[in-house]
Amino acid sequence: MPTYKAPVSDTVFLLNDVFDYARYANAPGFAEAPIDVVEHVLVEGAKFVEEVVQPLNRVGDVEGCVRHADGSVTTPKGFKEAYKALVAGGWVGLSGDPKYGGHGMPHFLAALFSEYEMSANLAFAMYPGLTNGAVAAMAAHASDALKDLYLPKMTTGEWTGTMNLTEPHCGTDLGLIKTKAVPQPDGSYAITGQKIFISAGEHDLADNIVHLVLARIEGAPAGVKGISLFVVPKFLPDANGAPGERNGVVCGSLEHKMGIHGNATAVLNYDGARGWLIGEEHRGLPAMFVMMNGARLGVAIQGLAISEVAYQNAAAYAKERRQGRSLKGPEEPGKPADLLLVHPDVRRMLLEIRAFNEAARALLVSVALTQEEALTAPDPKVRQAADDRLSLLTPVIKGVFTDMGFANAVKAQQVFGGHGYIAQAGMEQFVRDARIAMIYEGANGVQALDLVGRKMPKDGGRAVMAFFAEIGQFLAANKDDAALAPYLAPVQTALGHLQQAAMWLMKNGAADPNNAGAASTDTMHLFGLTALGYMWARVVKAVLARQAKGESSPALDAKLTLARFFCERMLPETGAHLARLSAGAATVMALPEDAF
Amino acid sequence: MPTYKAPVSDTVFLLNDVFDYARYANAPGFAEAPIDVVEHVLVEGAKFVEEVVQPLNRVGDVEGCVRHADGSVTTPKGFKEAYKALVAGGWVGLSGDPKYGGHGMPHFLAALFSEYEMSANLAFAMYPGLTNGAVAAMAAHASDALKDLYLPKMTTGEWTGTMNLTEPHCGTDLGLIKTKAVPQPDGSYAITGQKIFISAGEHDLADNIVHLVLARIEGAPAGVKGISLFVVPKFLPDANGAPGERNGVVCGSLEHKMGIHGNATAVLNYDGARGWLIGEEHRGLPAMFVMMNGARLGVAIQGLAISEVAYQNAAAYAKERRQGRSLKGPEEPGKPADLLLVHPDVRRMLLEIRAFNEAARALLVSVALTQEEALTAPDPKVRQAADDRLSLLTPVIKGVFTDMGFANAVKAQQVFGGHGYIAQAGMEQFVRDARIAMIYEGANGVQALDLVGRKMPKDGGRAVMAFFAEIGQFLAANKDDAALAPYLAPVQTALGHLQQAAMWLMKNGAADPNNAGAASTDTMHLFGLTALGYMWARVVKAVLARQAKGESSPALDAKLTLARFFCERMLPETGAHLARLSAGAATVMALPEDAF
Repeated sequence: MPTYKAPVSDTVFLLNDVFDYARYANAPGFAEAPIDVVEHVLVEGAKFVEEVVQPLNRVGDVEGCVRHADGSVTTPKGFKEAYKALVAGGWVGLSGDPKYGGHGMPHFLAALFSEYEMSANLAFAMYPGLTNGAVAAMAAHASDALKDLYLPKMTTGEWTGTMNLTEPHCGTDLGLIKTKAVPQPDGSYAITGQKIFISAGEHDLADNIVHLVLARIEGAPAGVKGISLFVVPKFLPDANGAPGERNGVVCGSLEHKMGIHGNATAVLNYDGARGWLIGEEHRGLPAMFVMMNGARLGVAIQGLAISEVAYQNAAAYAKERRQGRSLKGPEEPGKPADLLLVHPDVRRMLLEIRAFNEAARALLVSVALTQEEALTAPDPKVRQAADDRLSLLTPVIKGVFTDMGFANAVKAQQVFGGHGYIAQAGMEQFVRDARIAMIYEGANGVQALDLVGRKMPKDGGRAVMAFFAEIGQFLAANKDDAALAPYLAPVQTALGHLQQAAMWLMKNGAADPNNAGAASTDTMHLFGLTALGYMWARVVKAVLARQAKGESSPALDAKLTLARFFCERMLPETGAHLARLSAGAATVMALPEDAF
Repeated sequence: MPTYKAPVSDTVFLLNDVFDYARYANAPGFAEAPIDVVEHVLVEGAKFVEEVVQPLNRVGDVEGCVRHADGSVTTPKGFKEAYKALVAGGWVGLSGDPKYGGHGMPHFLAALFSEYEMSANLAFAMYPGLTNGAVAAMAAHASDALKDLYLPKMTTGEWTGTMNLTEPHCGTDLGLIKTKAVPQPDGSYAITGQKIFISAGEHDLADNIVHLVLARIEGAPAGVKGISLFVVPKFLPDANGAPGERNGVVCGSLEHKMGIHGNATAVLNYDGARGWLIGEEHRGLPAMFVMMNGARLGVAIQGLAISEVAYQNAAAYAKERRQGRSLKGPEEPGKPADLLLVHPDVRRMLLEIRAFNEAARALLVSVALTQEEALTAPDPKVRQAADDRLSLLTPVIKGVFTDMGFANAVKAQQVFGGHGYIAQAGMEQFVRDARIAMIYEGANGVQALDLVGRKMPKDGGRAVMAFFAEIGQFLAANKDDAALAPYLAPVQTALGHLQQAAMWLMKNGAADPNNAGAASTDTMHLFGLTALGYMWARVVKAVLARQAKGESSPALDAKLTLARFFCERMLPETGAHLARLSAGAATVMALPEDAF
């Protein structure tokens, strides 16, 4: 049975040493959370997920969610109690608006806590995750009346939220949405249609479920410009704001999925359900994008989260399972065999995972702090720059963290040999659970296209130029540091490859947009590797600074080894990405339809 | 629901055009099978698996195998009837010795047919696959008396076979085997111990199950040199050779696995079961290696097989599902959206899969023909050279085909978006089924180590030098062919990288064997890519020859496009592999155990 220990000290090291958390001391958004508070919250959060949430991971997979004939859904044994404890502990409302019962902690803190929650139990963590996304969308776009009615219950997690986009014939292409909304005399709308793949769409964890639903008001223009966003509660709030009359939305079935069995993925049938418009008519997509962008960041974290817990269990197994002998002769001749850990290829797998994990966590912390600034910085220029950086990096980390997170879960499973294929060991669940993160909230191909087609060229390349400048300035500022130099050179090379890719795209993407499409996934991964390499360089600088003060610890040494490993074994891939993407679209587009 | 159409015409094209099948016309082993017979067998085999075996793939996954209280096991609905038909049709004994009721077709033909069988239903195909492996081991090492008793029933598939190696504490490290064999006065042995992960270990498909079991004779030397091989039937054959008394081996449980649910993976408890020695005492491992080497080739084919069926279904979906618009503007403005196939990144995924599949099938045909020569060539030098080539390429194709086959199943699933995650679509089953092939018959890390530590240095590098020479001669012989040149240059580059890797290993592996271990997986994949690139070059030559004769077809054009795609988008990875492996073991081995 897998175990999990949240990497609190790594998170705190990143905040303090790498990203100089102290510099935010008086900034709005951060004021409530000096580092000791942050650390206390993370420690307590870690304890909660380790003790309450993680032990339910396996039962969630085995039991799954069950739909009954009346459309009600039962979650796996223990989920209900754990969810009540999550709400009672204030974890759902950690960064919620105090006006609505939230704890007012900064948003980045909730993001960093969510890594632990998702490592512990991804299927479980999705319930509060979607709720927070729905809260954010409503906070940004709903009327005060709707906010006053829903947010007090949703912020705390007493009620949960969902996002309803997909229909049987459309996922990515939301312009095809058919669900219709008919205006009613009282100002509400009657919503009718079918939504599929609705995570946390029906369950028994909360007293009410608040669906945010994209639909088309009768007579609306075709395509994405005719889509509006509605709030459709499972139970209509009564005069006191308590769940009242049952609304016309029913769970028609649950999907049988590869993984995340503990989360109910519902088909929701709307039959004249009462809904209320959020924001303006036909402007539903921008409103939903608040939730989707948050969700993309959340899904990126899922990739890291599964990679981390998979690593921990694979490393433990490699330090316990004895099989074969060191290639240099028995390390422990008194034992029947040496540990798996003596085998270089086993180490390679573990190091690939961990060299990703620690750099990805650094990038997550960096992006989460940027998001905080984008939300709260008083200076509009700072906000703008932060928003640029966040928008640029969101598709990168969604795509790269989830692709690598899945690949890492597979590697961790491989360390277990045949036992990794058996359900009992729990490793194959990580693989199945991690797989969805590459798909939902915009399949990774969509992220890649968002990056090359929208985020990189946007505003004349302002965001990407700023990010290149950020890395370039770091490299330039540290170029005379001899101890750091070996880690900077490979990052410089990677950055060079990424800049060449950007130039190639600028030149060839305009000439033929299929060139951008054919280059998109390689560009995204080249970008991700470069950003992760840059993170390692920053981490190494922080480690060297500590060592220069005379501090010495195996944990600090390990970071240097991992950084070297990343430079030697993972960054060389950037050259291959550049070669591939530079090949252009001609061959990719050459085959006629019939030839496939 | 997935569908499948066996690629018979591709197999025949490879035999005829690429590998000049006619040149074997009078060779022993091939004599019974002129190309028209080969094609007829493949066509009939294709029909059988498409109509009878493939429709059971999904039910096999959903139902799985069920163990009853008495230790008996029921296979999924329909498996029994399909297996009877498989035996009746002569498919199990296709290349079996006519002396024992086989059809005497060459072995390579059974290998090529098995690709189709495993595409159709991997879990099902394992039953006859293991049986044929057991037959081969017995044919090579068992006494005539044992052969006469068992092979007539096993060759036809009337009885099935298994291989029993793994025990709870040892998989790869067979020296740790504890199962004991106590000599009995009648010359038999009493076998006692527990074996796990026994594929097809217990089921209701056949009248008897013949276990080949590794065990240690009382007083045998420790380690691998004290292991013997035994045949232990489920039912002891009576005087007429019919299944008689029940033997002391019982299925204690079935594993709950990630995939291949239709195959019963048994824990087998031996309690003084009667067994008979195969070959010499303490020489069990070399005997079992006959079966294991065959099994490794079989597992390599599994990687290709799943990749092929996953491709077919992903391509069909991309030609049917409409989502979004071409980046160049609507291709079918009259429809609500364009086909998935207009998106370059969707094509990229499909082309990556297919550019692998067709080259891998070429390499499979090449290796299968080599195996035939190794078994049957009259000239000992030819046999030796063939055996060298087979031994060298076996770990390469086992490791590379299964790693890439799994990655391709994941890509094919990705083409389906959210629907790929739902069981009903069948794509996630391919992923789960493909995963085991990276693990069993020697995890891919073991294959990589076998390659760099044993197969490449063996006999002073004779086999690997011969293979480099084979590619080098092909490149040299065709260097003046202007039409072929664009395909040869990238292969030349890849070969150069592989040769550099071999030299690096020669130099550094001797100095520190951990350098070889740390380089192993990258070397294996570099080797695989080079071999696949070489196959594309040979395929292109064959295509150009046909086109030079005035033949023109979309299928021939497609091969040229796929070859270009492979050169542009897949071969660049060889440089990254070389960079990684050249980094050496120092960083890989640096972290102390506690730091993991």
